[in-house]
Amino acid sequence: MKVNISQFNYKTLNCQTNTAMIREVLAKSNDDVLNIFGELSICGSPLFDSALNKDLYKESSLCGEELLKEKKSFIVGCVAKGEEDCRYNAMVFVDKGEVIGLATKRNLGRFDTHFTIGNGLEVVKYEGKTLAFGFLSDLENFVKRKLKTDLIVLCSNELFDKDDKDEVISTLSFYARQMNIKIIYVNRVGGEGCYVFSGSSFVMNERGEVCERLPMFEKGNIFVELDNIKAKTFQPLCYEEKIFKAGVLGLRDYFAKNNIKKAVIGLSGGIDSAVAVVFGVEALGKDNVIGVLMPSKYSSDHSVNDALLSAENLQIKHHTIPIQDIFEASLKTMQPIFEGTEPNTAEENLQARARCMIVMAIGNKIGAAMLNTSNKSESAVGYGTLYGDNSGAISVLGDLYKTDVYRIARWINKDKELIPWNSINKAPSAELRFNQKDSDTLPEYDELDKVLVDYIDKGLSRSELINRGYEESLVNRVLHLFKINEWKRHQEAPALRYSKTCFTTDYKQPIS
Amino acid sequence: MKVNISQFNYKTLNCQTNTAMIREVLAKSNDDVLNIFGELSICGSPLFDSALNKDLYKESSLCGEELLKEKKSFIVGCVAKGEEDCRYNAMVFVDKGEVIGLATKRNLGRFDTHFTIGNGLEVVKYEGKTLAFGFLSDLENFVKRKLKTDLIVLCSNELFDKDDKDEVISTLSFYARQMNIKIIYVNRVGGEGCYVFSGSSFVMNERGEVCERLPMFEKGNIFVELDNIKAKTFQPLCYEEKIFKAGVLGLRDYFAKNNIKKAVIGLSGGIDSAVAVVFGVEALGKDNVIGVLMPSKYSSDHSVNDALLSAENLQIKHHTIPIQDIFEASLKTMQPIFEGTEPNTAEENLQARARCMIVMAIGNKIGAAMLNTSNKSESAVGYGTLYGDNSGAISVLGDLYKTDVYRIARWINKDKELIPWNSINKAPSAELRFNQKDSDTLPEYDELDKVLVDYIDKGLSRSELINRGYEESLVNRVLHLFKINEWKRHQEAPALRYSKTCFTTDYKQPIS
Repeated sequence: MKVNISQFNYKTLNCQTNTAMIREVLAKSNDDVLNIFGELSICGSPLFDSALNKDLYKESSLCGEELLKEKKSFIVGCVAKGEEDCRYNAMVFVDKGEVIGLATKRNLGRFDTHFTIGNGLEVVKYEGKTLAFGFLSDLENFVKRKLKTDLIVLCSNELFDKDDKDEVISTLSFYARQMNIKIIYVNRVGGEGCYVFSGSSFVMNERGEVCERLPMFEKGNIFVELDNIKAKTFQPLCYEEKIFKAGVLGLRDYFAKNNIKKAVIGLSGGIDSAVAVVFGVEALGKDNVIGVLMPSKYSSDHSVNDALLSAENLQIKHHTIPIQDIFEASLKTMQPIFEGTEPNTAEENLQARARCMIVMAIGNKIGAAMLNTSNKSESAVGYGTLYGDNSGAISVLGDLYKTDVYRIARWINKDKELIPWNSINKAPSAELRFNQKDSDTLPEYDELDKVLVDYIDKGLSRSELINRGYEESLVNRVLHLFKINEWKRHQEAPALRYSKTCFTTDYKQPIS
Repeated sequence: MKVNISQFNYKTLNCQTNTAMIREVLAKSNDDVLNIFGELSICGSPLFDSALNKDLYKESSLCGEELLKEKKSFIVGCVAKGEEDCRYNAMVFVDKGEVIGLATKRNLGRFDTHFTIGNGLEVVKYEGKTLAFGFLSDLENFVKRKLKTDLIVLCSNELFDKDDKDEVISTLSFYARQMNIKIIYVNRVGGEGCYVFSGSSFVMNERGEVCERLPMFEKGNIFVELDNIKAKTFQPLCYEEKIFKAGVLGLRDYFAKNNIKKAVIGLSGGIDSAVAVVFGVEALGKDNVIGVLMPSKYSSDHSVNDALLSAENLQIKHHTIPIQDIFEASLKTMQPIFEGTEPNTAEENLQARARCMIVMAIGNKIGAAMLNTSNKSESAVGYGTLYGDNSGAISVLGDLYKTDVYRIARWINKDKELIPWNSINKAPSAELRFNQKDSDTLPEYDELDKVLVDYIDKGLSRSELINRGYEESLVNRVLHLFKINEWKRHQEAPALRYSKTCFTTDYKQPIS
């Protein structure tokens, strides 16, 4: 049997664009090839509450009918209508233009809001073989039914997860061996809002070995003669490269799918903005990223120089716009309120908010979107200014702890200094008062991040953290800061999601 | 049988405070009274990802053991541990200090993330009677089992919904008659973040008639001799009063549970800020709300006068802080970028952002939180400035369409002018350029809101809207604006939720 796997970057709610991509593949396909497209390939995903949209179902059906006209064989993902107003997340099996099977998702996931529970994997006869097809999450149920088939085709839109240890491969490898069967797995690729789908579709033999694999983060096709597959080894991407590619793809698609060409980003000379801008330039091209240096009287010389170097290394357009005038005008304006009070965060935040005003003003003037530069460690403990540096249409580092930002910075710089080495090596500072250092207010990031990972990502409780050897005072301080800043995290720039604990998409605490 | 129903305002993650409230009731109770507390009464709710916290389970168990020491009879909600790391959302039945039953929630809801599916209603023998108890969502399953019991006790944390037509009462009334049984229903009360729980716990007789009912939005107790109950009529709150009370309770608890005393709010002289400030004063008291008037050269005289009148009517402290200096400094600062360009939203947004800076600066200086003043119509079509008027710790009107804001304004003013009549009667304007009116950019709100309600709340599709008689151009314009502003809604001030389509809590569209 010959199959052609398409790992595409579908656009949510754009049935016609997606259908055109699918139809092009079918038009070129030979009659004896089974073309496999991913979950919800016609209408895109995630749909969220737009799954309720009745026009979407109609359009998706019409597009499906278009595809039948090619008289080819394929498996495609769409919304299927059940009785009354039921909607299923479905895969349709078409044999030379005739629909011969419909698999509806049974084990619904987080993106399946408004879908009705379906029947799970479906079995069809195709080219004299018995073939099961449907959704990854329904495989376990299918295995229990102990049906004998010659091949299983599974589709699933799986999110990138930086800590993933190829879990889909290990699971499917187990079942391939247990059932002595070949498995095809098709995942989509691309960014949708904050979400990045990672691709890595593959074909596995009966021994659970991967024989063909499409790359992570890249759209593409692969033709496979299933009778002639052999185990191959595939070089995995390293941790830093995976994250970098995920971020670049996420950014690129966020901008492209929202019809925004240009990004504007504040460059402070610190590591976060220096790393974020590299993602931006890789995603959008150097001509589409505008750097803004916004020094104040508290900025050190090295900050300005490092920020300049960062822009020059990347050859991007940049403006230097001092905040002094706005800051002084705002102090003068606030004088009736501030007079006789001790300086506190009010004065510091005015500076961060003046910078946000400037970056947004450039964005509004030229139709560019602001790229946020905050990281996950800051966000966890509330070290940032709402409507100041926490702003931006999208955040590329918001789901990365500071120590991960350093790690990626060094990886980016492995061949060439794109990020000024001084930004990497100096002590981090917000520079909102003289000689300020992050460590005046926060534990050192090495120490902080360890507690955060153990608490947030590994789910250790307060008592377990203390048992593990962390100072009780440190644990109390970090957990307290984490708790009281939930309200702030609710309004931060949406972050590209690289983990199950991304604050703006996945991980929520009670606000009160 | 004697029961005492407690409709309390529990505080999430504060097991000890909640337990003290419960224990006080038990200490005063007679031995022959069954005391009923609500869902998750010990640890509070919604828990979101804090349900994973192992310390919470331990603390909740210890608190539960505390309660047993009173040797009284009660039903209380808590987290129960199953095998391995399983957690159930559970109700425990205690007969004079002895645990005699445990009901675990089977039909899990949106707030039950991380809970395992339980067994549904449980039946116990208590005082010679057969009694079923558990969660509202599990009643339907229980009815199918056709067990004979003398009484059903149901608990549930149900959110306020402005469009609710007493659905819990009609459902339970149906089952009470079908099963010929008395039903007790206990709901919590109070605000938690954006969520408002509405109370209205009740006792129903075998004919499905409500015999006792606790008020909406108020904590309280009610003693009932179940053998002597009679149908009563209860005066329902009108639409406007329900929303007003929900908003006031939501705000009050948001501030109290976050340990914030004071609110600061920009007063423009327009209807939204004039209404929002009334909610604020009712929730926090007039001494805890600070109004800020921030006129610009585009402000009309009536705006300033209306804003002043609004502050004076409510007797709140207010400051007049013109934005001119900050606006001019920002124009001067932006001159290298703006020079030679046509004025656009960049200049308009600078003013809205200057106002946000000022309000936040006051908030940061005195430890007050900013109260947002945006409404749902604006948010739907993106008519507002991110990091400007869309800001704030919490939004009290963000889930109310503009026509609802007018309706509530008139209701608030029924006895006395709290909201300047001129703010209600004049044409709405953002006043970001000379003689600007909202209707220059948007359809009239009457017309706009009808489309929005039909599209968002009633779920009509584009084609259905046009069939219903709306102009195709209007529909296309509104739906387009709605679609392209999803990214903005992701960062707006969290809104108190009054409906199933609250943008910041419930209703999401794909960003791209």
